[in-house]
Amino acid sequence: MNKKSVAVLGATGMVGQRFIQALVNHPYFEISVLAASPKSAGKKYSESAKWYLEGGMPEEVKGMKVVSTEARIEADIAFSCLPSESASEIELRLAKQGAAVISTSSNFRYDDDVPVIIPEVNIEHVGLLLEGQRKRRGFEKGFIVKKPNCTTTGLVMTLKPLQDKFGIESVIMTSMQALSGAGYEGVPSMAIVDNVIPYIGGEEEKVEKEVLKLLGNGRKDAKMKVSCSCNRVGVTDGHLESAFVKLGRKASVGEVKRVMREFEGEVQKMKLPSAPIPPLIVMEELDRPQPRMDRYAGEPERAGGMAVAIGRVREDNVFENGIRYSLLSHNTVRGAAGNAVLTGEYLFKKGMV
Amino acid sequence: MNKKSVAVLGATGMVGQRFIQALVNHPYFEISVLAASPKSAGKKYSESAKWYLEGGMPEEVKGMKVVSTEARIEADIAFSCLPSESASEIELRLAKQGAAVISTSSNFRYDDDVPVIIPEVNIEHVGLLLEGQRKRRGFEKGFIVKKPNCTTTGLVMTLKPLQDKFGIESVIMTSMQALSGAGYEGVPSMAIVDNVIPYIGGEEEKVEKEVLKLLGNGRKDAKMKVSCSCNRVGVTDGHLESAFVKLGRKASVGEVKRVMREFEGEVQKMKLPSAPIPPLIVMEELDRPQPRMDRYAGEPERAGGMAVAIGRVREDNVFENGIRYSLLSHNTVRGAAGNAVLTGEYLFKKGMV
Amino acid sequence: MNKKSVAVLGATGMVGQRFIQALVNHPYFEISVLAASPKSAGKKYSESAKWYLEGGMPEEVKGMKVVSTEARIEADIAFSCLPSESASEIELRLAKQGAAVISTSSNFRYDDDVPVIIPEVNIEHVGLLLEGQRKRRGFEKGFIVKKPNCTTTGLVMTLKPLQDKFGIESVIMTSMQALSGAGYEGVPSMAIVDNVIPYIGGEEEKVEKEVLKLLGNGRKDAKMKVSCSCNRVGVTDGHLESAFVKLGRKASVGEVKRVMREFEGEVQKMKLPSAPIPPLIVMEELDRPQPRMDRYAGEPERAGGMAVAIGRVREDNVFENGIRYSLLSHNTVRGAAGNAVLTGEYLFKKGMV
Amino acid sequence: MNKKSVAVLGATGMVGQRFIQALVNHPYFEISVLAASPKSAGKKYSESAKWYLEGGMPEEVKGMKVVSTEARIEADIAFSCLPSESASEIELRLAKQGAAVISTSSNFRYDDDVPVIIPEVNIEHVGLLLEGQRKRRGFEKGFIVKKPNCTTTGLVMTLKPLQDKFGIESVIMTSMQALSGAGYEGVPSMAIVDNVIPYIGGEEEKVEKEVLKLLGNGRKDAKMKVSCSCNRVGVTDGHLESAFVKLGRKASVGEVKRVMREFEGEVQKMKLPSAPIPPLIVMEELDRPQPRMDRYAGEPERAGGMAVAIGRVREDNVFENGIRYSLLSHNTVRGAAGNAVLTGEYLFKKGMV
Repeated sequence: MNKKSVAVLGATGMVGQRFIQALVNHPYFEISVLAASPKSAGKKYSESAKWYLEGGMPEEVKGMKVVSTEARIEADIAFSCLPSESASEIELRLAKQGAAVISTSSNFRYDDDVPVIIPEVNIEHVGLLLEGQRKRRGFEKGFIVKKPNCTTTGLVMTLKPLQDKFGIESVIMTSMQALSGAGYEGVPSMAIVDNVIPYIGGEEEKVEKEVLKLLGNGRKDAKMKVSCSCNRVGVTDGHLESAFVKLGRKASVGEVKRVMREFEGEVQKMKLPSAPIPPLIVMEELDRPQPRMDRYAGEPERAGGMAVAIGRVREDNVFENGIRYSLLSHNTVRGAAGNAVLTGEYLFKKGMV
Repeated sequence: MNKKSVAVLGATGMVGQRFIQALVNHPYFEISVLAASPKSAGKKYSESAKWYLEGGMPEEVKGMKVVSTEARIEADIAFSCLPSESASEIELRLAKQGAAVISTSSNFRYDDDVPVIIPEVNIEHVGLLLEGQRKRRGFEKGFIVKKPNCTTTGLVMTLKPLQDKFGIESVIMTSMQALSGAGYEGVPSMAIVDNVIPYIGGEEEKVEKEVLKLLGNGRKDAKMKVSCSCNRVGVTDGHLESAFVKLGRKASVGEVKRVMREFEGEVQKMKLPSAPIPPLIVMEELDRPQPRMDRYAGEPERAGGMAVAIGRVREDNVFENGIRYSLLSHNTVRGAAGNAVLTGEYLFKKGMV
Repeated sequence: MNKKSVAVLGATGMVGQRFIQALVNHPYFEISVLAASPKSAGKKYSESAKWYLEGGMPEEVKGMKVVSTEARIEADIAFSCLPSESASEIELRLAKQGAAVISTSSNFRYDDDVPVIIPEVNIEHVGLLLEGQRKRRGFEKGFIVKKPNCTTTGLVMTLKPLQDKFGIESVIMTSMQALSGAGYEGVPSMAIVDNVIPYIGGEEEKVEKEVLKLLGNGRKDAKMKVSCSCNRVGVTDGHLESAFVKLGRKASVGEVKRVMREFEGEVQKMKLPSAPIPPLIVMEELDRPQPRMDRYAGEPERAGGMAVAIGRVREDNVFENGIRYSLLSHNTVRGAAGNAVLTGEYLFKKGMV
Repeated sequence: MNKKSVAVLGATGMVGQRFIQALVNHPYFEISVLAASPKSAGKKYSESAKWYLEGGMPEEVKGMKVVSTEARIEADIAFSCLPSESASEIELRLAKQGAAVISTSSNFRYDDDVPVIIPEVNIEHVGLLLEGQRKRRGFEKGFIVKKPNCTTTGLVMTLKPLQDKFGIESVIMTSMQALSGAGYEGVPSMAIVDNVIPYIGGEEEKVEKEVLKLLGNGRKDAKMKVSCSCNRVGVTDGHLESAFVKLGRKASVGEVKRVMREFEGEVQKMKLPSAPIPPLIVMEELDRPQPRMDRYAGEPERAGGMAVAIGRVREDNVFENGIRYSLLSHNTVRGAAGNAVLTGEYLFKKGMV
């Protein structure tokens, strides 16, 4: 098989490193460009990046020369995790050149013509919006696809089978989010030791808006009410969320678990390399899921961190037809790089890149 | 003023130590007995207790001899924080002897004749239930008063002014609870480093039941729906909670804050030594309250840790007439020993002990 | 190849679980018995053990029935991590039955006839002491081998090549030890959040004694001076140590690093499955090794956590011919189960079991 | 008493805030200027500074207008905690104007004419060096005094009585340093959760040089050898150090403890407000001192955090006449602002400001 060439934009940061982990030895993709800000450019990757992840920097990228995001970049697919402020210009340029831009940055995310994708949830939005996007933006072959906020991602994956089977009227969610969600330098240690911070700027608004877009039909938002409270806790990776959901009709705890366990998307049927089988893991232990124990849930190995772990499914006291549960997803794997790579795998298999 | 003699039952544990902190140099009370399990008895307090709290063991108690809870204990008031399994027999014995037993243990808490008290919220329940309790239990002069679960306490203090002014229909609450709530040895460090545990045995049921009892009229529970999700985080002291509340009628964020800020109980009007003025502190900073920064909120000095800090009061998207906010209260001060001592101060001033 | 049957004694604890991880799908060994205290016996492993490690309980052991350590146990090798208080009687019984007992417990460790082994350092002690042990203890075919304390292990592995090449006169070492070293329930979270504990009962004495035994000739202790200060830090796994070493003769930093990098034991030459190649990894980054980043150092995959990571090798100001460095080793893998399994692999290949 | 006017240079940072805590309601000093970088200048202190410390921002400074460090600053004493890069020019300017500059910044610290002071240890260096400094630098009335590195400070305070009584030949020290030592934003949380960092840039060199300067006679360094290994641990405040000391002559553990306990400086005899009595607290508990429990050691109240807690004094195995012990000192109080304020109190009482 001819591998597609891929560029990683923002390759030196923590999510860029998760992209590299997901793409090394990938059966469909070959990293051809590692791009970063001009100040990192020109040096070998091993010299310009401090490696933040377990397991050390892969040998394959150590010697690659880092390219400036301002330079011309040639690649079939551009995986972008640039800072949202600077991403738009570069992403537009690459899409115009013909690249499939699959991006974790939040710019464009709320534009009507830009699909925001969790492959198991709404991959059909790509097809629905692509033509309009190309026409409106003047792309010939390229396009831009986004992934949602990391806190949205785990939640929506658990909501999707409930929406399909029972309908959803309301969602109240409180998150306990990992430090890596703010970037490696985002949260000073002095702020979080023996502490919790009950605020993450802009996060609640993002989740509340994105749930509706992702569970909508591609043209119109879903009709439901969503309210969140987002907190930062002293955990490296893995967002834990407590969800209270008002279903459209009565469902027993047993039915809810069964529907979650049976859930799968087209990417699971296609057995894509990064597709976790199953995508939702419903745990019966009373005290799970836990970030340190369950954040790398997901099989096969390449899908580690791509499954969402769910626990404590139980009835709710407040909502009619209400249930509550806890969920955990790895915020920089399923919530960022892994989700984007899985989207790329799908588009590749469908001949869209 | 003649000080009342007090016994601390369970004096060597962490809450027992909070009692000692609260009672040393107290204007109304004099510690006359430190009681603990028979195996600690007979030794000096400094030899039988490992001191867990900041600031070191007060000189006043170092040389006191620890008495067995099985021995005869003479005191006007018994502050009890015994393990719930063994508390009942001892508390009954002391109440029969004539002591006012003010207890943080959960035994008896759901008996109809036992008042569960937050002084600012429902101190009148004492008067309503006392005669019945004495008659039923065969106490002549003594009685038993309980404080609620530590997670209930902060929440109910914030709900009380809302209930009085607007009515409350529903409450959804997710807690991020401190380690000390499980006792000093309760949570192994291996369980919580880089982790959150989405489960605390029995806690959700307690909160859901106690909110109704505390906000009820002393005879009947309040009519409202309460649903919780309780989580343990790696914080030493201070329970943080995200609350979503459906009010009985429309109220603006400004009104809600004003009503919270103006809230006070009789204990504030009486300027009791441990009564925080004000009892609710509404913060305007976006990222507060935080456990490490705000857990000792409360003035004057003797009331440090007795106020509940509230932040992020904002509209809710799900409930009609809904608001949401974060709240923090010190789980072993306001949530345990401090609340009990404030109850004792009230009863003393009213001549009930 | 006919696999040897092995029993894990103390199979439900944290080190027992590390044994299971190391033995599942092992090319030489087959777990035939999981033994634990009588109160766990009779149930399936999945019911009697709470799994503490990342990656979940291996399918292979879930259904195995846990056997009482008081029952008759049949196995070629018994890997023991029983509490030291109760280990002696059981280990003696099994050795008498003919089993090779390879044990992480500290009982017998200071007996002259009991080899305490790090395979790369002193595997020849087994041969030297075995006959005497069998004679003295009345074993026919079986025997008992111990591993050293987890804090000793990493240190001695770094000292061995220095001793061989330059001689060692003195060692001063301060440790920053992981929580798992005290067992899962050993350190309460309240004791360690925002804290360090400058004391670990008995640890310094163990290290000071064991270094001499391990670096000795099997009959007599090595002649050097060792002084330690052992501290507990809030890290799950991985003991970090700062070492100051007075060598027997002048050696440059470059020579020291080279000697460390070239170090290997017979187990490396034999390419045993759990032997890390190389056993010592000397890092050049200024701020390494770090517990979270480097504790699983060691290749091939089965040897993850078996290498010792060394960093910051530099001259010392105090000692003549002095050097200093930092070292890190995984306390429950290299420091316990992994070290024991590697010992077992060697003994198997040499036909001693 | 006429209070001296003081300026705090670098008033918005964490050490600046410790200065404010130490100076509010001070019997000798009155804060007249809060100075910070030009970008904070012109705003009220409550608007330009995010308060990092427990207890909240003192009312006294909330409304004060922050002045640019580039503007003219009038004050009798300038307490400076400016970034070392920018401190020199400003400190020189103020000293020329006639102010006593007492600074925690590391610039000038190794100049021969600049006293580096721990009041209990070497306050006489001020008198010895002042004339030379004024002459050389062209100051008429003003001068510059420095405090040592925070890691040096605790160590030297414990060494001083040993040096005086027994002599010291060598010191080996491994530190476990708090996060606040790097400044509020200094250590990202992602770097330290479940981790220790065995490196702090430049720290070891500073300690090794400063110990000699402080224990010297003001003109010449002390003759001893010092070697360190500096580590960062996940603790907010309080540097813990393991020290191994070769004394000049034999001393029993009992003698060492007695000499430490009896130690006092002139500032203790003068009963200066920030002088802890005693300055060294030798603990007998096996597992102390601990950062979270003991960092605020020191009485009277204004001296909280100014005492050094010592524990585990015991014989050393390596050094002839060797002892070892653990010590803890609050790095931003005794190690920074508090030490500077105590120096100021002494100079004030001696009529030098």
